Amino acid sequence: MGVVLLIIDGLGDLPTVGGKTPLQAARKPNLDALARNGITGMLAPLGIGLVPGSDTSHLQLFGYPPEKYYCGRGPLEALGIGLRLRDGDVAFRANFATLKGTEIIDRRAGRIPTKSATMLAKAITSITIDGVEFIFKNSVEHRGVVVARGRGISPAVSDTDPHSKGRMNRCKPLDKSAEAARMANLVNKYSNIVRNILRNHKENVKLEKAGMLKANGLLLRGAGRYSRIESIKERFGISALCIAGGALYKGVARFVGMDVALVRGATATKDTNLSAKVQRALEELKRYDIVFIHIKACDSLGHDGDAQGKKKMIERIDKEVIKPLRKAKVPIIVTADHSTPCSRMAHSGHEVPILLYAEGERKDSVKKFDEISCTGGGLGHLHGRDVMPLLLNLIKKGKMYGS
Amino acid sequence: MGVVLLIIDGLGDLPTVGGKTPLQAARKPNLDALARNGITGMLAPLGIGLVPGSDTSHLQLFGYPPEKYYCGRGPLEALGIGLRLRDGDVAFRANFATLKGTEIIDRRAGRIPTKSATMLAKAITSITIDGVEFIFKNSVEHRGVVVARGRGISPAVSDTDPHSKGRMNRCKPLDKSAEAARMANLVNKYSNIVRNILRNHKENVKLEKAGMLKANGLLLRGAGRYSRIESIKERFGISALCIAGGALYKGVARFVGMDVALVRGATATKDTNLSAKVQRALEELKRYDIVFIHIKACDSLGHDGDAQGKKKMIERIDKEVIKPLRKAKVPIIVTADHSTPCSRMAHSGHEVPILLYAEGERKDSVKKFDEISCTGGGLGHLHGRDVMPLLLNLIKKGKMYGS
Repeated sequence: MGVVLLIIDGLGDLPTVGGKTPLQAARKPNLDALARNGITGMLAPLGIGLVPGSDTSHLQLFGYPPEKYYCGRGPLEALGIGLRLRDGDVAFRANFATLKGTEIIDRRAGRIPTKSATMLAKAITSITIDGVEFIFKNSVEHRGVVVARGRGISPAVSDTDPHSKGRMNRCKPLDKSAEAARMANLVNKYSNIVRNILRNHKENVKLEKAGMLKANGLLLRGAGRYSRIESIKERFGISALCIAGGALYKGVARFVGMDVALVRGATATKDTNLSAKVQRALEELKRYDIVFIHIKACDSLGHDGDAQGKKKMIERIDKEVIKPLRKAKVPIIVTADHSTPCSRMAHSGHEVPILLYAEGERKDSVKKFDEISCTGGGLGHLHGRDVMPLLLNLIKKGKMYGS
Repeated sequence: MGVVLLIIDGLGDLPTVGGKTPLQAARKPNLDALARNGITGMLAPLGIGLVPGSDTSHLQLFGYPPEKYYCGRGPLEALGIGLRLRDGDVAFRANFATLKGTEIIDRRAGRIPTKSATMLAKAITSITIDGVEFIFKNSVEHRGVVVARGRGISPAVSDTDPHSKGRMNRCKPLDKSAEAARMANLVNKYSNIVRNILRNHKENVKLEKAGMLKANGLLLRGAGRYSRIESIKERFGISALCIAGGALYKGVARFVGMDVALVRGATATKDTNLSAKVQRALEELKRYDIVFIHIKACDSLGHDGDAQGKKKMIERIDKEVIKPLRKAKVPIIVTADHSTPCSRMAHSGHEVPILLYAEGERKDSVKKFDEISCTGGGLGHLHGRDVMPLLLNLIKKGKMYGS
């Protein structure tokens, strides 16, 4: 039987609920039972005190040091929404936005309905400029991805998305190469062409008539160049399945060669269908060495500063995810990719707790799964790079070094 | 508000006071309160078991690995006493000494009064030999710095100071380069010229008449080449102020681009004006991201083997430094650059305790700040390189890697 790697995004926190972290405050009998019957510790995904992004942290936890393997967010998002990338492609995360000239009225086009976005997307699926094809694909609401494919292009260009109100940025080269200069120029041309196409698109006319914001532009960010890397099978000799709602996580999983399960109701929101994800995991554990389950909502609630909501989400995870996994006596590692303290409403460099449970494995004396109790755990203080070797060892897939 | 980084030099010790370390034996209600309300751990500044110098350890704690950034003691001392260095300068620590021929009568010229040393220094402020300028500046008592400036010089030369009684050493090249050979030759010429100038200097005549030792020579050690490195602002995006008495610490601080406060009564001795340093820190915390406070005396007392004195100094620090900082609820990290066990009268490779306190941060279950209690702390066992990321994360200045 394989092992479940459960990553609860942004789980770590600071004492914000009456002097307790949401994890300390939550009623979570099943997580605590796993802690009691397993071995725990603390994890600094990218190193002590360092503030991880979700993408870099997941790469590290999967055994791919981001210093070597991180390709920027764009390609991971593109893979996540199912685009097939080719070596050399440059991908961006893209938002439909409401623009007036270069002024941004709304960075998310009023969170345009996915249906409308899909109609608009059809008009800009593929645009070729100067021999470079720009492929657009939308995902949920205003979200989408742009992939540039062709010769002489570069990911060393700035975002057109200012990440705030104000004006849309002109894309600029970030190094002195001819490719970066050309790429910036192409992106600016592309942005103009897209605006010309979208301006009077009949879907936008409809939206305007309905009193809604038009989606008449795209904002690009997170340029990165894709190239195929060795798969988790090639690197570690194991098979792996990803069960996630969020595109970014599916993207990281595909990037490292995991299979990705499509689970109805896995939405990466606090209303996600946790039971469906767990049921699928329980079925797939017979076929895969690792089933990676990703749960996003705790991170989002941290970003919102909603400590009570985060506590409740943890209680839901305990009941709907941990309980059935525990009942099935599944080998499991539970941890997080980083802390998202509600008091900061942002990622932080605080360690996260980690627990490892499997029948026949070592137990420590820790009785609760939280940011304080696990500092006394038997695994000590781990770096993200330690997780994959621990996991391989757990399932007896570690390769002996020496003889 | 910024954070105080308090480094108590040589704080760590072994059980020398009735089976307790000076830190365990000391009455220190304020340090213990910070430990109780904060999170603690143990720190190996340069790695487990390794014996740190003060200069290399401070560099590492400031986020500059000494393997890459350490330039030798000379340049740091020179910066510490306010000399402006240029790229390529080779600097030495220098002592006024009492010589008879090449025989050393006193390595410190009887700890010559600073006033007399300043009179003598005027005669040797700048001496040029073969196109290389030798600049001398004295600081306190017998202490001073020599800076060599010019083409074709090298720091790869031996000390003329034997660090013990006996004879003054000839300066020798430490590699086979032409520059090192030339530099050794220049240093020997310089030493002779200095002796000729000082021999019959009227200040020395005066000292002799008063029955005191003459300062008729200079002993050089710790050659190092200065080159400007990226500042703490450039490297980490933060502003920092140093409040220290000792030249070496001010030198390390200037080397990494910290501002240095001049505080009356900060003498780096056990009579230093601790309250003045703390008052200044409290004022400057509004303007700086980090206020680094250095307290030297515990190290000196360790070198003297004075465990009772070290215990008393810790009690003074608790009352005069920690108490007002605690009252002001200042975010703070307290640690040391190394252990200086009284039983060894020298630096050692034993870990030192570290504590981190700020409102809203995690707490562990440790109740006392000492070398044994903090081994159970929530921060675990840290390396010196972890301190700057922890500090940046504490003040929300850590840069996220990834997205």
